[in-house]
Parts: sequence; C-alpha cells; structure tokens
Amino acid sequence: MFVTFLSDFGLKDGFVGTCHGVIKKIAPEAQIIDITHGIPAQAVLQGALVLANTVPFMPVGVHLAIVDPGVGGPRRSLALQDGEGRYYVGPDNGLLLPAASRAGVTAAHELANPAYALQSISRTFHGRDLFSPAAAHLARGVSLDELGPPLDPEFLVRIEVPLLDVRDGVINATSLYIDGFGNIALNMTRDDVEPLGVVSGTRLEIEHAGERYYAVMARTFADARPGDVILYEDSYKNMALAISRGNAARMLHAAPGQEIRISLVR
Amino acid sequence: MFVTFLSDFGLKDGFVGTCHGVIKKIAPEAQIIDITHGIPAQAVLQGALVLANTVPFMPVGVHLAIVDPGVGGPRRSLALQDGEGRYYVGPDNGLLLPAASRAGVTAAHELANPAYALQSISRTFHGRDLFSPAAAHLARGVSLDELGPPLDPEFLVRIEVPLLDVRDGVINATSLYIDGFGNIALNMTRDDVEPLGVVSGTRLEIEHAGERYYAVMARTFADARPGDVILYEDSYKNMALAISRGNAARMLHAAPGQEIRISLVR
Amino acid sequence: MFVTFLSDFGLKDGFVGTCHGVIKKIAPEAQIIDITHGIPAQAVLQGALVLANTVPFMPVGVHLAIVDPGVGGPRRSLALQDGEGRYYVGPDNGLLLPAASRAGVTAAHELANPAYALQSISRTFHGRDLFSPAAAHLARGVSLDELGPPLDPEFLVRIEVPLLDVRDGVINATSLYIDGFGNIALNMTRDDVEPLGVVSGTRLEIEHAGERYYAVMARTFADARPGDVILYEDSYKNMALAISRGNAARMLHAAPGQEIRISLVR
Repeated sequence: MFVTFLSDFGLKDGFVGTCHGVIKKIAPEAQIIDITHGIPAQAVLQGALVLANTVPFMPVGVHLAIVDPGVGGPRRSLALQDGEGRYYVGPDNGLLLPAASRAGVTAAHELANPAYALQSISRTFHGRDLFSPAAAHLARGVSLDELGPPLDPEFLVRIEVPLLDVRDGVINATSLYIDGFGNIALNMTRDDVEPLGVVSGTRLEIEHAGERYYAVMARTFADARPGDVILYEDSYKNMALAISRGNAARMLHAAPGQEIRISLVR
Repeated sequence: MFVTFLSDFGLKDGFVGTCHGVIKKIAPEAQIIDITHGIPAQAVLQGALVLANTVPFMPVGVHLAIVDPGVGGPRRSLALQDGEGRYYVGPDNGLLLPAASRAGVTAAHELANPAYALQSISRTFHGRDLFSPAAAHLARGVSLDELGPPLDPEFLVRIEVPLLDVRDGVINATSLYIDGFGNIALNMTRDDVEPLGVVSGTRLEIEHAGERYYAVMARTFADARPGDVILYEDSYKNMALAISRGNAARMLHAAPGQEIRISLVR
Repeated sequence: MFVTFLSDFGLKDGFVGTCHGVIKKIAPEAQIIDITHGIPAQAVLQGALVLANTVPFMPVGVHLAIVDPGVGGPRRSLALQDGEGRYYVGPDNGLLLPAASRAGVTAAHELANPAYALQSISRTFHGRDLFSPAAAHLARGVSLDELGPPLDPEFLVRIEVPLLDVRDGVINATSLYIDGFGNIALNMTRDDVEPLGVVSGTRLEIEHAGERYYAVMARTFADARPGDVILYEDSYKNMALAISRGNAARMLHAAPGQEIRISLVR
C-alpha cells in the first residue's frame, strides 16, 4: 500500500523523518511517496491546491497531508475516503477537500480512537502522534470506521479559493502560489481567458504592485524569447505567468494571494 | 532491515543520493529513512540532539549519522550497539552518544576492516566510502565484531550540552537549535521551570541581545494570540520559545548556542 | 529494478513527488534513489557533471535526469544504454552524455512511442508526462527498442566542458560548480597540477574577481588551519578550492562558470 505525504514541515528539521519512522514502525511494508514538504509554513490554501493538483498522478492509497496552524486547538482531525477508494488523513481545516472532492467524499471520520494514535499525544506535533499513525494503520488495512465516529461530509471545514473577477475586458486575477522557478499560478483556467479572445500570440498588459509589464500568451517557454513575460497554461491546467529563462515572481515582486491585473493590448 | 540517515550534507548536492546508492548496492533490500540532512554544516551538537530526539520514533535498525568536521584527520570512525539492539554508525566526535546512551552502549567498534569499506577511501567523504558501506553491511547481517577492533565505550568522545544556570529566580538558558518554523529549543525541561512556579499562563520576561520581550507560558500555539511570544514544552519534551503564527528566532535575533534570560514578571 | 533521479526541480514544489507517483503507478516495485534535485535551475552543465560523478556509485538501473530549459521546443527526448547495461532517460541537450559515455553509449532511441508516455503530454512538464513514464517502463522490463526509433549516438547534442588553460606556470581554471559547503570544483585534476610541481604543502596564489588570496595545496581539510584556503582533490577526483571550516565560494565571491587564476608562490 502507498502512503503519500505532503506538509509544510520543510526538510531542515527531523519532523518529516520522524513521521516516516512512525509510519514504518506501524506499517513496515508501506511505500511512502513524499509529494512535497515545501508548502510555505501554515499556507493551507497553497497546500490544498498542490495536493489537489498532484493526487491524480499518485497511486491509489492513503494521502497524508499536514498544514496545520490550528494544532492543539479545537480543530478536528480527519480521515476521509473518496469515490476512487483513496484515503485522506489530516486536519479539518480545508486542506484535504479540494483533492478529496474530485471523486466525491464518500465517508468522513474523526480521528478519536486512541488505539490508532501514539500512546502520548503532544499538543504541537499531531503529524507524528496522530496523523502518521492513522495513515499507517489505514495502509495496513484497518478500516476507516475503526478510527473514530463518522462525520457528515457536508459539515467539514471548507477553504475559499479567491474568485476571478473579469470586468470590461480586464481580468483581476489572484496569484495562488509560486513555484521554485518563480512561475506564478493564477486562479484562472484557459476557459476563463478564451472568451476574451486571448489565444496563443495575443499581446497582454500585466499590472502589479504599481508597475506595468508587457506579456504575451504562449504555449510554452520555448515559444518566447529569453526575458519575455508569458501567460501560459501550466502542467496542472492553471493559467500562469512566467519569464522565459527567468524568474517571474522576482521580477514582478509577486507573492501568493496578491491581485494581478491582466488586460489586452489593443 | 532499516537504515536511518541523518547528516549535515544538505540536499543541494549529490552527497546524500550518493550514500543512498552505496547502501543500496550493498544491501538492496534495506529500507532507508532520511531523518534529516538539514543539520547546519558541522553543527555536531545540534546533530546529536536531533538524533537523540528522533531515534525513539524510528524502527530498530542501523542509525547512520554524519556531521563530521574532522573528516580526514585523526578522529576515529565508529559502530556502536545499544541495549535495544539498535546500531549506530558515524564519527567519534560525540554525535552518536546522546542517542545511543538512552538504552546504554553495549558495544563499540572502530571501523577498521577494509572489507567493509569502498575500495578506495577518499580523505573528504567518509560518508560515502566508509560509513555508508559499514551501515549497509550491518543492515545485511554482518556482525559488529567484523567491522574492526572493540573500543571501550568509556573512552568515546563526548559532547557537552550547555548547563542551565538558575540563580535568584532568573533562568540563564542556552538556545540549542532552531527549527524551520523559527521555534527556539532551550536546554531545559518542564522539571527545570516548575519549581520556579512557572505554569501555564505564567507571565515571563525574556531578555536576549539587549532587548526585552514579554512572554507567557502556554500549552500550545492555539492557547496564545497571534504574535504572542510563548514558552512551551515542545514535542520532544524540551522547553522552547515560539511566536504564535510567527517566527520567534527572527524576532528575537536568536541563533543556536546563545544565552537567553528568562524571569518571572512579578 | 532501481531508478535514480536527478533534476533541477527543487523540493519546494510537488514536481519531484509527482514524478515519483507516476513512476510508482507504472512500476510499483521499482526502487527510486533521488541523487539530487538541487541542480541550479536550467544548469545543464552542472547537472551533467553531478550525474557523471555519482552514477558510478549507483546500482545498475535506469538513470532519469531532467534539467531541461528547452522543454516544449524542438529538442529531442532520449533513452540511452551504456556498456554496463545502465539506461539513461532525459532530454537531448548534453545532460546524459558525460555519465553515459564512461562505459560507452551502445544504443540511443528517441522517446516517440505514445504507449509509453502519459495520455496527454503537457508542453512544460515532460518530466512527468514523458521521461518518468519511459524510465518506469524500462524499469519494469520494456525494451529500449519499444520506446521509439534508434538514433545515431554520434549525433546526440554534446555539452562543452570549459578547457583548462595553463601558460607560463599560471593556471586559468574555471569553476564548474559549488557545493552546499561552498567548496568550488574546478575543471582540472591532479594530473593537471602535478607537472607544475604542485604537491601537498605547495603554497599558491589565487586570483579571482580582482582580489588575491594565499592558498596551500592540502590532502584534506584537517591538514589546514581553520580559515586557510586550500586546493585539494575532492572525493570525485576534481581539484577544488575550500576553506577549512569555512565557505570558499562566499569568501572568494565565486559562482559557477567563472575564471580563477592559480599560480605558485615563489
């Protein structure tokens, strides 16, 4: 059985390794795939979007995800199942739902059975003491019912993805996240821009943080000259901004959650 | 058999991957768990503390650890066994002992048998040429005696953990390490502070680098308001300083090995 | 079967994890060894050198490598086999050849058979859609011929390693890459310097970026005093510059691809 693992723990400390150890002690045969541990600290929305983007490429298994600013507080701990037979384990703060909702959430349980947690549960590291054990027990075949009482999927905490605002041919987009190459993923898809006549080669004006930039709609980096700002459909089907052989986030001074205006050059 | 692996190699280069390759060539069935490779370069004390904190959560196996500023010099290379049947492999500079001493060191051997090293041992990368092969051979069942002559555990190099100094109700603590969230682990436990009357909710004054800060003893981040400095028992049972939804090390300008004074607000 | 994996993807995003998922879906039994994902973005030469340095320490298997500034453009996608039975998968931009040429390239094929790629191939993430599936299919036993038409190994894109220039006893070296400790690997070996009379203990002058530094040829860090600049043979048999217990790249303001002059102090 596979356990995939996404978090904001980073790799500087032993947190991720500790969770691997806990999982392997309980389920020595489980294969762990680290999706990433580079989600910015406490960035639940970004974690939720990366999880939803990557789960379709993962083998069916248990998807453990931990971005958990509310650890130790009243937020609940969850295990979900979806229509493809995938399990999800993590906090009830919206992190799991964009991924789990793709095939529909078929069951939700609260992690409440101490038999499937470590003996002593710290107040600050549920990843180690609660979530990793639950994921490992699911991986070795424990049924979801055993982990705790059922919850109504309708009442799970949901996360808001900023809405795209298009008015008078001007797109007010929001940057969702920035990857390690500096590419800026936006809250829009090809279906949002095609009705505006934006196709490959269309020239655009980008406005952000008081500055304006020219850009061009392109299919891939190789279609643009080095240094050109391009708008393109990224590999997860989001529209994104990039600079051919450069770093768009650095040049545009862009961070997640900021507004970026895009309009056609006429 | 499991091999856990901790180092200061970082993940920017191929050092960690090279060690994985060497281990897998010798012991293809071994499962490797990376505890972390983010120990700051040559920070033996920090590596020793993270190893001691995390080994209890690891399956019994071979614990390979490399933070080795003395590579190529006269320092010895070690394999140890402890009372739980765990093996430890690394340099004789104090790195292994805090972890291995928990259950008592039952045997110590110097890595001296060239049959269990790579054919040519470089002067700067014993991780690849000496330690990884030794760990892999232990993982496939070679006995500790085979690796080299026995050493008296009494004469292994030990590392000094700074002592806590409490005088007139003022705690002079030392920062041991700083995690990726900016939380500052101190050289003290709950047993050090409870006799002073420090309990959940106690108000404290922190003094560091010429600045003073108010803080509060708390059980978890969720007990404090965003921005509050808290003193809490971290998940490895160290007392630590944190800022709820913030970065304490950055705000306090704290680095490992520095003195931090803590006193009660009266 | 082993799949090793090197890239410039970094670990901040889900790119590496996504490729792991794709490989494990196709070849669940394959063991993946991450060599490194810390190659600087689009640094094909550095990726090629790290791959060539590390592959000899890897078990025989499939060596997946992706540093691919030309993704989506006309560059071809490759699978190679070498004289040791190792496979290589990646872009035709020179990345694979220094490693694959060690034992001689015995076969080269273009990745052109859609049966061994994901159903839809994005323009910007061939790592996920094309290279990882091809590597996974090789790992589960698909023959190289199946992946696409053969290519003449003579006509693969080659990468230029800067030539060493030695004149009048002055060495004009080029920095090839800088590791996480700040050590600077140069385009020269022990065979280049010994004819000049440079042996252990020889005093040298380093000139870079308008500054001069004294250095000494040494066998290892432990031979020098803390703070000394040393020239030494690194563990991959390149001559390199380091500072004992310090960071040479930071002190010398050195970056990859820069000229560094080395001469004997007389």
